[in-house]
Amino acid sequence: MKAASMMRMVLMVVLCFGAAAWPARAADRETLLTQPGVYGTFAAFQMDHDWWDLTGEARVIAVSEVKGLVEQFAHKIVIDSYLLRGLSDHADIMFRIHAHALSDTQQFLTSLLGTRFGRHLVATSYLHGLTKQAAYVPGFPEQLKKDLQASSEAGGKSYAIVIPIRKDADWWALDQETRGALMQEHTQAALPYINTVKRKLYHSSGLDDFDFITYFETEKLDEFHRLIRALEQVKEFRHARRFGHPTLLGTVRPLDDILELFAR
Amino acid sequence: MKAASMMRMVLMVVLCFGAAAWPARAADRETLLTQPGVYGTFAAFQMDHDWWDLTGEARVIAVSEVKGLVEQFAHKIVIDSYLLRGLSDHADIMFRIHAHALSDTQQFLTSLLGTRFGRHLVATSYLHGLTKQAAYVPGFPEQLKKDLQASSEAGGKSYAIVIPIRKDADWWALDQETRGALMQEHTQAALPYINTVKRKLYHSSGLDDFDFITYFETEKLDEFHRLIRALEQVKEFRHARRFGHPTLLGTVRPLDDILELFAR
Amino acid sequence: MKAASMMRMVLMVVLCFGAAAWPARAADRETLLTQPGVYGTFAAFQMDHDWWDLTGEARVIAVSEVKGLVEQFAHKIVIDSYLLRGLSDHADIMFRIHAHALSDTQQFLTSLLGTRFGRHLVATSYLHGLTKQAAYVPGFPEQLKKDLQASSEAGGKSYAIVIPIRKDADWWALDQETRGALMQEHTQAALPYINTVKRKLYHSSGLDDFDFITYFETEKLDEFHRLIRALEQVKEFRHARRFGHPTLLGTVRPLDDILELFAR
Amino acid sequence: MKAASMMRMVLMVVLCFGAAAWPARAADRETLLTQPGVYGTFAAFQMDHDWWDLTGEARVIAVSEVKGLVEQFAHKIVIDSYLLRGLSDHADIMFRIHAHALSDTQQFLTSLLGTRFGRHLVATSYLHGLTKQAAYVPGFPEQLKKDLQASSEAGGKSYAIVIPIRKDADWWALDQETRGALMQEHTQAALPYINTVKRKLYHSSGLDDFDFITYFETEKLDEFHRLIRALEQVKEFRHARRFGHPTLLGTVRPLDDILELFAR
Amino acid sequence: MKAASMMRMVLMVVLCFGAAAWPARAADRETLLTQPGVYGTFAAFQMDHDWWDLTGEARVIAVSEVKGLVEQFAHKIVIDSYLLRGLSDHADIMFRIHAHALSDTQQFLTSLLGTRFGRHLVATSYLHGLTKQAAYVPGFPEQLKKDLQASSEAGGKSYAIVIPIRKDADWWALDQETRGALMQEHTQAALPYINTVKRKLYHSSGLDDFDFITYFETEKLDEFHRLIRALEQVKEFRHARRFGHPTLLGTVRPLDDILELFAR
Repeated sequence: MKAASMMRMVLMVVLCFGAAAWPARAADRETLLTQPGVYGTFAAFQMDHDWWDLTGEARVIAVSEVKGLVEQFAHKIVIDSYLLRGLSDHADIMFRIHAHALSDTQQFLTSLLGTRFGRHLVATSYLHGLTKQAAYVPGFPEQLKKDLQASSEAGGKSYAIVIPIRKDADWWALDQETRGALMQEHTQAALPYINTVKRKLYHSSGLDDFDFITYFETEKLDEFHRLIRALEQVKEFRHARRFGHPTLLGTVRPLDDILELFAR
Repeated sequence: MKAASMMRMVLMVVLCFGAAAWPARAADRETLLTQPGVYGTFAAFQMDHDWWDLTGEARVIAVSEVKGLVEQFAHKIVIDSYLLRGLSDHADIMFRIHAHALSDTQQFLTSLLGTRFGRHLVATSYLHGLTKQAAYVPGFPEQLKKDLQASSEAGGKSYAIVIPIRKDADWWALDQETRGALMQEHTQAALPYINTVKRKLYHSSGLDDFDFITYFETEKLDEFHRLIRALEQVKEFRHARRFGHPTLLGTVRPLDDILELFAR
Repeated sequence: MKAASMMRMVLMVVLCFGAAAWPARAADRETLLTQPGVYGTFAAFQMDHDWWDLTGEARVIAVSEVKGLVEQFAHKIVIDSYLLRGLSDHADIMFRIHAHALSDTQQFLTSLLGTRFGRHLVATSYLHGLTKQAAYVPGFPEQLKKDLQASSEAGGKSYAIVIPIRKDADWWALDQETRGALMQEHTQAALPYINTVKRKLYHSSGLDDFDFITYFETEKLDEFHRLIRALEQVKEFRHARRFGHPTLLGTVRPLDDILELFAR
Repeated sequence: MKAASMMRMVLMVVLCFGAAAWPARAADRETLLTQPGVYGTFAAFQMDHDWWDLTGEARVIAVSEVKGLVEQFAHKIVIDSYLLRGLSDHADIMFRIHAHALSDTQQFLTSLLGTRFGRHLVATSYLHGLTKQAAYVPGFPEQLKKDLQASSEAGGKSYAIVIPIRKDADWWALDQETRGALMQEHTQAALPYINTVKRKLYHSSGLDDFDFITYFETEKLDEFHRLIRALEQVKEFRHARRFGHPTLLGTVRPLDDILELFAR
Repeated sequence: MKAASMMRMVLMVVLCFGAAAWPARAADRETLLTQPGVYGTFAAFQMDHDWWDLTGEARVIAVSEVKGLVEQFAHKIVIDSYLLRGLSDHADIMFRIHAHALSDTQQFLTSLLGTRFGRHLVATSYLHGLTKQAAYVPGFPEQLKKDLQASSEAGGKSYAIVIPIRKDADWWALDQETRGALMQEHTQAALPYINTVKRKLYHSSGLDDFDFITYFETEKLDEFHRLIRALEQVKEFRHARRFGHPTLLGTVRPLDDILELFAR
């Protein structure tokens, strides 16, 4: 028990060591998170069962290696971390990585998988998308455009949900105007949730087996559920050939918390 | 053999230790189980084969850790336990967890998976849903409303079945009135089984890959089967794009019984 | 080699020990197998690769434990055993269990999985169904009813095939009379095979992901194949949304033979 | 290195020992391969990773056991062997077994799986079919019948491809004459490839999840590809509900070659 | 740490040893890559977790064996290597192999899988296709033909994407002229990307479960994404029964880089 508490102390030291550097990049982070032309990768992993056969000390050393790696990549990519364990059935951890080039993301993930921690990770879902200027908003009525600018920044955003979508061929065969009208109806249905559910869209045709990755953050999961219900009821939804599969549900967590959970 | 019987005794002591606390929470339990706005999680697990390589003593210690954990969470979540082993092919144990926040459920499941017992569990299905006020009942004829109030509390409810459902886009495109009429037909078909099969509905759009989780408890599985047959014959059933996959079938069991089975 | 032949002898003794009790229950067996309201479970298992790492002696002891278990349950359930190994790709052994309550079946399978033999079994498919009075036969013409009574008991029935079926929503939306007419055509198509292929139907809606489990026994697999071909050509077949997946094919075998195969 | 070369020599001796017996059955082989009413089984296996942890000597002993087994069954079944490794992604070896009874095939495969070699095999696909007299050819024009008799025996047949097919319900609902006309168009499209691609058809409805297994041998894979393209363009192809999944592609190989590959 | 750096040095020597031979075959390479009638195989592999249990020295020796093997086959096949790790979820490495005969490809892959490195590879996807003369281009307008000749060789091509496609039966039922018109629209939509995205088409009907393998190389992933979006919007896309599943995304990498990554 004594050895365990000592290791715990070591772990604390190790995890705190990098804590200062992490929030320091918040500014760049916001820039990268709002620009078009940025690649977003959602990488979900499962921890294999062998991990738990390591000694506590070995686990502490292993997670500390990850901390160092993340700092090393902080100058070119933005990494968000999520705990899926206990909420999604085939994944424990998810990273959302924003980068100007997917090769940077690959370099980070490859390095991660090469750490003593990463060697125990099984990649269960990689989704990639590109941020773009809103395609249909320019054609929306002025009032709707104005409504969309309402801030959704209020409050903490504890839950994150990723729903990838593949549209059917009929959707893509529609002309831009018709799609615009359908998206306006879609947007109107989503409007009541603009302050409680933060949304972000990634375009992924060709980069994975989907056309879009829809990403949500909210503190109020019931509001998020109502938003999805509202979206299921508009005509555009008929064109969702695949919606989810997987649906990834987790909580937004500092990497330190997640690593500590697996080091314990 | 002597060592084994001693361990068995230890196990009994360990399991009984928490037995008093468990039923003591029955009152809160009923409240949580009947309120709208509560999150219900169905978490099914498979025990890995390595579990059985542990010594009997190690298994007894491992399960006792789970008992303590459950008590520790008893003040904020309600946990029901089910034995799926021998009835469902890819799962051994299922927990149904009711909570005001899914983050509490996640905390419990994450803690569970971190125990010596949990490290051997493979999460095979997590389903999440929200309880709501009945959507269509207010528009039903008075007689039907009255019939629905018939108690279904009579007798023990030994079997539990979970059938998740995804509706098709056509369903969501119907107006509320039309859906209400279809649900009235559905409800009427289910009425003869109200006393033998207890039902509970969870709304899950966005929280997993389904729209609803239907949960059943019954002592009479043949009546339950007849209920599902009756529901397959109403028009609303045409809108079930996915029905089951998985269908989870098990028996309602005190956690002690389940743990003892795996400690033996 | 000497040790091996000794173990073989031990195995013989162990397996023969229970042999007397097994056929003694033939009478009850026939009753249970012909009554409506009985639950039939088809449980298919794969042997994991670790099994073969056990010593021959350990394997002999492990299988003898199963024999004892089966006898212990012989007073309430009827167990048929099948060898799927070498004929079905993801299963080695199948049990068909008839019981008045699925909880008895669960108790047996749970006990089985808890034996030293069972710990190496991976459950690949569990299918559950209920036997019922024939639904459409009462409306059939008298001659057809008479034809259906022809005995199909002649000869040994060496092969067994399980094909689970899910009907489409259109099927269930048909009225009883229309379904009856379609089933009469189906039955007529099956008539020529009544003496060579023994059939049994289980209703499974709600108990698993299927609506029916069709079970066949035959000595003449080519006749069985022709029967299925004949059934594919009637109108009712258009309503099979899923037919097979899995199709389980094996041979009817005394449990002793199967256990010996795995003890060797 | 010295030990390795000695083992290699032992392997050579072991493998050559049975080589004489193998081609000696060529005559019976041709008979069985051309009769209707014969069962054909395609059994594809993957070698598990543990196999390579065995010593070279252990592997040599293990494969020699297989040789003996094959000879032992040579009087009642015909076994062809294929190397899928390097061409099909989830299989390394395939056996095609022709037998008058599937129980003989099962006995062989069960024995095979029980050898030290077989314990490392994972069965990935078993397909079973029955050979029959051609169903539609009798109604074909005389010239087409004559064309079909052209020998396709010229040259070695180095590649083998297995494509299982499930037809849709519409196909089976067509009358024999309409199906005959469609099959005539199909046959005509295949005619140009009769000399370069050898075909064989197995009927499998009820025996696995397919209706037909189509088997091809060719030295010219590009001609085979063109044949499939031609068959995709006739009306009958619209009735293929499932075509492939799996498509098994490999090379025809003497068992000795395959065993040596895994013994090395 | 000292031992590690020494091993690193050994690795460098080992990897550099073959470096000279590799680019020396560039000329033959271009010939094989542009001829019709060549077989292209895409073989994606995952490294198993046991690999990382080997000592650093053992890993260095293992990868050096691969280098030698590749050189040995350089006279008859052309091998391109890709790093999928960190970008595709169920694969780490991909080889694209061009050969005049798939038997040569099989011989290489079988040899590769037999190396100490290859024994840790799990084959996740094998796709095979044949290069052909363009089927519809001869019927295109002269201007379009001319546009298609624009060089797409400018700049490095760092990313590679593989999207296999299965067409529906309706596509194959269209006459050549109609398909030609649809392909002309398709080609026109792709034209703006001819300088930034390099494309190559393989015909695979019969060789795997697809009809085509489309292969892309680009430095500008966003342009590639826009190309796919453009192709989704033409009528021909309605005939894609399966598009992707899997979509393989990776970076073009010299084999040395990839091997070093796994030797480290």
